[in-house]
Amino acid sequence: MGRTLERVGDTWSLMILRDALQGVSKFDQFQKSLGVAPNILTQRLAALVETGFLERRPYQERPLRHEYMATELARDFAPVLTALMAFGNRHFAAEGVASQMVDAVTGLPAEPMLVDRRSGKPMDDPDFVFAAGPAAGPAVLERVAQVQARRRQR
Amino acid sequence: MGRTLERVGDTWSLMILRDALQGVSKFDQFQKSLGVAPNILTQRLAALVETGFLERRPYQERPLRHEYMATELARDFAPVLTALMAFGNRHFAAEGVASQMVDAVTGLPAEPMLVDRRSGKPMDDPDFVFAAGPAAGPAVLERVAQVQARRRQR
Repeated sequence: MGRTLERVGDTWSLMILRDALQGVSKFDQFQKSLGVAPNILTQRLAALVETGFLERRPYQERPLRHEYMATELARDFAPVLTALMAFGNRHFAAEGVASQMVDAVTGLPAEPMLVDRRSGKPMDDPDFVFAAGPAAGPAVLERVAQVQARRRQR
Repeated sequence: MGRTLERVGDTWSLMILRDALQGVSKFDQFQKSLGVAPNILTQRLAALVETGFLERRPYQERPLRHEYMATELARDFAPVLTALMAFGNRHFAAEGVASQMVDAVTGLPAEPMLVDRRSGKPMDDPDFVFAAGPAAGPAVLERVAQVQARRRQR
């Protein structure tokens, strides 16, 4: 989790990614959509290219201009952004919802929830437990042991 | 999205929240689990109480000691953390997975995916579109118009 956040960076980076996943690709479009200062936008776009979330490619030769496309990695990150946006809309949109995912067929706002792909069970089912993986270090093993001890107490 | 991240804060805060959602509640436990410096932990716990993700309550009188419990708000944030953790495990766990959600019944690692609660359709279904909400300002309306124009071009 820490490593992901290190790579994705800050709020601007997440908003750039969200826009890129909707097909925003040109510098001016990002700037207009986000109201971000050009130097910050330049820096964040470069960082997202560096970490593999965006691909920079030329779309015009004279003068040379580049656009920024969401990569496969960015598309795989979309559920994190969708869950984050839905949470923000539920709790921190005091003045009303500014943007949301909508089912174009029914016109109803989506209510994103996490399920397990294999079983279809909601991820908040008590069957799902936090467990150590093959590369767990002492801190993780300790935490998992604590969690399991607490579960047995209940 | 921006407002959520402002409130949740940084990587440490997210890791504290993840632990709190698994039932870690005492200062020493957080410190041991995360390997975080006490002054940073104190500051992040206070901030998470301030923003409503944790509730601070006494668990011992002499000497007075407090613990930190995940609130309803924090529990509603769990899908964001689960999606983030799964993404990190898929992409940035070069040395192997340290921790993951597992189905305790089958022993298999969970593969979290987002679906719409109402229809059960996966959120990456093309039916789901980014749309303006009632409180959309000019920048959002502009972005939604751009997205819809691109969709029509396809």
